Formats: sequence, structure tokens, C-alpha cells
Amino acid sequence: MSAKSPKDFSLSCPVPITRYPNILMAHGGGGKLMHDLIANMFAVVFKNPFLMEGHDSAVLDLSRKKIAMTTDSYVVRPLFFPGGDIGSLAVYGTVNDLAMSGARPLYLSAGFILEEGLGMEMLWRVVQSMGRAAKKAGVQIVTGDTKVVDKGKGDGIFINTSGVGIIEHRQKVSPRSVRPGDCIILSGDIGRHGIAIMAVREGLEFETTIKSDCAPLAHLVGKLLSAGVEIHCLRDLTRGGLASALNEIALQGKVSIELDENMIPVRGDVQGACEILGLDPLYVANEGRFVAFVKEKDAARALKIIKKDSLGTDASIIGKVRKEFPFIVTMKSKIGANRIVDMLTGEQLPRIC
Amino acid sequence: MSAKSPKDFSLSCPVPITRYPNILMAHGGGGKLMHDLIANMFAVVFKNPFLMEGHDSAVLDLSRKKIAMTTDSYVVRPLFFPGGDIGSLAVYGTVNDLAMSGARPLYLSAGFILEEGLGMEMLWRVVQSMGRAAKKAGVQIVTGDTKVVDKGKGDGIFINTSGVGIIEHRQKVSPRSVRPGDCIILSGDIGRHGIAIMAVREGLEFETTIKSDCAPLAHLVGKLLSAGVEIHCLRDLTRGGLASALNEIALQGKVSIELDENMIPVRGDVQGACEILGLDPLYVANEGRFVAFVKEKDAARALKIIKKDSLGTDASIIGKVRKEFPFIVTMKSKIGANRIVDMLTGEQLPRIC
Repeated sequence: MSAKSPKDFSLSCPVPITRYPNILMAHGGGGKLMHDLIANMFAVVFKNPFLMEGHDSAVLDLSRKKIAMTTDSYVVRPLFFPGGDIGSLAVYGTVNDLAMSGARPLYLSAGFILEEGLGMEMLWRVVQSMGRAAKKAGVQIVTGDTKVVDKGKGDGIFINTSGVGIIEHRQKVSPRSVRPGDCIILSGDIGRHGIAIMAVREGLEFETTIKSDCAPLAHLVGKLLSAGVEIHCLRDLTRGGLASALNEIALQGKVSIELDENMIPVRGDVQGACEILGLDPLYVANEGRFVAFVKEKDAARALKIIKKDSLGTDASIIGKVRKEFPFIVTMKSKIGANRIVDMLTGEQLPRIC
Repeated sequence: MSAKSPKDFSLSCPVPITRYPNILMAHGGGGKLMHDLIANMFAVVFKNPFLMEGHDSAVLDLSRKKIAMTTDSYVVRPLFFPGGDIGSLAVYGTVNDLAMSGARPLYLSAGFILEEGLGMEMLWRVVQSMGRAAKKAGVQIVTGDTKVVDKGKGDGIFINTSGVGIIEHRQKVSPRSVRPGDCIILSGDIGRHGIAIMAVREGLEFETTIKSDCAPLAHLVGKLLSAGVEIHCLRDLTRGGLASALNEIALQGKVSIELDENMIPVRGDVQGACEILGLDPLYVANEGRFVAFVKEKDAARALKIIKKDSLGTDASIIGKVRKEFPFIVTMKSKIGANRIVDMLTGEQLPRIC
């Protein structure tokens, strides 16, 4: 085999270099810049139908068996925060991405990039946390890799986990399956993960400690699927929060979304912290929350199933999918006004996951 | 689900903290310290039969279908070197790990950890190189993730690729399948990747530029498998080089290995560079070389198949598996003396892949 240089690789750099000659923190922020980078660079070069689905995991055909595959690197700072740590996050985050494709998570890989000088006890605590999280989520960590970089060329621990799950139903859970009329169920209150991290970083103290909502969601998705609920799309609300997730789905599904602010649960302490920090809870990251787009006829039943689970007690139907004005997310505010909920631009909370 | 703290996770840190309170570069060097870290920490916590196989990929059962899964993070420095770059390395390295499990590589994930301030053009070159490499290796990059860390908390680009492949034969290719009497075929000359990197780093100039041997090996393994060669084990010779790979296999397969130095091809310029740099080519990393442990009756035929391929022209049978003195690798030197070839201790070439 000789090295070939097919024409499609001689393209010039598609991200406007004059405007962004260098990577900004916002290129990893889950907002517009990150989407531009993915759409204009990675998707152009790696182009294939699996990637083009634009979903949390790729759904792969393996001679009549369907599996899902996903990857995520975790660079959260600090490594330990109220309600979790980089280890549990690295397991739950990837498990949840598989669940969002309607897959039952089975196997994870773990790739560690360690900074020279990292305390061994610290690594041990993180690894233990990963082990506990994997048990809780019902997955096995089956392969791994360790790299060490020189002091000052990393930041303690970065972890990549990739995951493989199996798809055991015939539904096509994907942003492209969303249809006008679908009801949008939010599985619980939003904003806790981001605020838990920010509170530690900024040294803020509240009356009660706000804990991350970090949790594995696959069993809950499994309950909906086994009950035969017609699920069109699932999405967990990580970087960029609820607003960015819904904007992505509206864009990919070519629909509009209408939300009712009154129905979106935000805890009082989280709301208060958001006000102090100048953040909008709609854009704050979560690690144990998801939205389900379900056919209207199944919505009430689906909500009941979610609310019965300890991770979904505060679930509610927060909005509907519309045909008119595709690609737009709007919200009726608490005082009755309508506003457009845009995608996150730039960088709200760096290194949140 | 409530958070449980099972007893097995309340163990104290198994890596002797008094001796290694902090991560050393050698913990990522592919030698004894890395093996200790994996065996005493990761394997203890993540314990499962797939991981315990200790192979380059995990072989997974997916209801009667067998798939292989592997992961690798790439932190090579410099990002571009003669014969390759971090992008092609990140594809070939993972593809090769799948091939070494006897799997046909199909799908890759790509996780980027970018340092704030990285040149966009640089990223574009790397991504293009990954695209070309994926085409050449016949795999698709189906899912990805991008994280950005603050300036000074990363080093340009780190890439994790995880891979999934399918196992389409009934052979059990694994260190545990190695048997006394097996012949060991080396697919070509050794030491080029490591020396190519070191020459750039140290600013060494030789008469001709030594290029990395970085290449995808799956098609060559495929040829052996379709010819029905009885393959007991395959291993690519990355971090730690030929010596470490053979020591790992001797350990896992509970056998000894006898090498003949005369049969191990090392190019003159690589040998010369090794002498200048004080390195032993047996321990220098390769990215396009592997050893195949094959049943004696098939060895001549397997060698012929490998030598016919452009990546295997210099292949040769370098030794045999023995029952006596298990776990030991010995080598008859060019002058006829016998010596023990030990596993790499510590750190020979940091950030080589």
C-alpha cells in the first residue's frame, strides 16, 4: 500500500483562520464555536454516515447486530467536587451518551493522560471512584491505556473513556426522528453540576452545599424502552446545558421547539447561585439529566415511568415540537412573554466535564 | 439506586506510596513501573475477565458475535516527525492494536484534548492526516469529542482513539495461546520510529533522514488469517520495543523465549543512531512492526506471506518458544554468547507515541 493523497484532503483549512488563528477556550465550550469546529473541520475530513448522524454515540452495524459507540475526554477541574469526581464523571458521562442512543451500555475503555508528579494517592482515589461508578452503571472497563506527560504539560489527570453498547430494540432514537407534536420530557431540575463545580472554583459557600447531579441514566432509559414508549430522541444536558441540547436537536431535526419556563425545575439554591455568578441555568451543564422526545400519545405514560425512578422524581413535560419556524427554540417566560432561546455562544464554564 | 461502597473498594492504594508518592515519567514508559501501575491499580479496581486477558484489545462477546475493542491516547512530541505525525500515529496505533487481537478494524472514535492557543492550521494538518490514515487503513472515524484546556495545562494536541473491530475467525490469538515450539516471526527491521522522533528532538542529523516505520498492519494480519496460518499470538512493538513485547508475552504465556540476534534486522543508520544516543534497538519503539507466534509447521509459509507484502520485506524468524525457564527471554548474541533480555525498567523515550 502506498500513501495516497486524495483530492478531498488538499482542501485548505475550513475554519476561518483570519478570524480564529488559534484555539480558544470556547472551541471546547459546547457552543457555537465548538459546533463550527466540528462541522467545518472534523466532519469534513472524517465524513461518513455514522458521524453525520450527529448523535451522542455512533450506531454501528455489525452484520445484523447494532451496537453504539461513543467517546469522551474528561478534563474537569477540580478533580473532586461535591457529588462526584473526574472518575465517576468519566464513567457516567460515557454511559449516558450510550443510553442517549437507546443503547444498553456494556463495555468501556479507559485512557489516562497523567501529569508527571501527580500524587499516587490521588490517582488511586480516582480509579476507585471509576470502579464504583462502573459497578453502579452495570458496565465493565475492558481495555485501557496510560500515558504520562512532563510536569507542566498536563493538569493532573485527563481521562478518556470510550463506550460500546448494544441496541436491543427497533426504534430509531436520533435527532432526525423528532416530529412536530412530540412532547419534551425533562428528567429533573437543572443546573446542579455546573454550579457545584463553579462554587468550588470560586470559593462560594451557600447554606447547603450544592451537589452535582452526576448519575448513570441507562437504567431509566431502559425502563422507557421496555415499556414500549415511542421515543424519538434522547439527549443528556451536559456542556451548554438544556438550551444548547434543544438547539442542536431543533437544528438536526429541522423543527422548532416551544418551551414553558414554568415547567422547567430549577432549585432555589441553584437559581440563587446562578444569579450571583451571572449564569443562566438553561445553559449550565448537568451530568444526570436528559430530555426525551416522545410521541404525544405516550407522553403521560413516559412521565409516570420517569417520575417513579429516584433520578426522575422532579421530571416534567417542558414543551412541544412544532413545524413552524424550524431550527428555532422559543420559551414562554414565567411572566408570559415569548423569547428566543439561542445556542450558547463562546465559553460559559470551561472545564466542566 | 443508592451509592454503595463495596468492601473491595476500601483497599488502601496498592502502589507502594512510600516508594512512589508521585507519578514519574516512567509510569508511562511501557516498562516495569507502568506494568506495576496497571497490575496493582487499574487491574485491581476494574477487574474483569476481558481486561485480565492482558492483550492489546479486549475481545468482547456480543451475543454470538465477537468484537475487539481497544484504546490509546497519543501524546507524541513533536507533533510532526519524519515519516508521520500524531494524526497518522493515532489512527495506525489503534488499528494495529485491533489487528494484534486478530480483529478486522472497522470503527474508530477520536477524542481531542486541545491546548488553548493551539494554531488552527496545525490542528487542520493533524485532522487531515487522520483522515488520510483512516482511508489507508480502511476504518471509519464514527464518533468524537473535543475538549480545550487552558494554556499551559496541555501541550498542543493530545488525541485518544478507541477502536472496534470484528473477529471473523475461530483462532484464539492471545498471549495465553503461545505454546513451546512456536516460531517467532518479526515483520521487519526495528527501531525506526523511536530514532526518528529522538533525532528531531535532539537535533541530530544523519546522512539520510531516518523515517518512522508508522504504518497500518491489519491487512497483513488479514492475509495470514485468510491463508489459514495457525497464529497463537500477535503483538506490535510500540513503547518498550521488541524486548518488552516479548517479555510481556513470556510472562502472560508462562513460557520462555529464545532469540537469535543475527536474525533481528536493524538498519545500519538506526544502529549508528542508537550508539550515539546510548539506546538499545531492542527497546526502541516501532509503529509498523509486529511479532507473530505461529505453529512451527506453518512458520515457513507465514514468513513467505509476510515477506511478499511491502511492509514485511525484511521479515525473519527470530526465535522460538521454549518450555524451560518460563518467563525468561534470552538471546544468542552475534558473537555467540547467551544473555537475558529483560523488560525495560524506567523510562527510555518519553512521549514517543
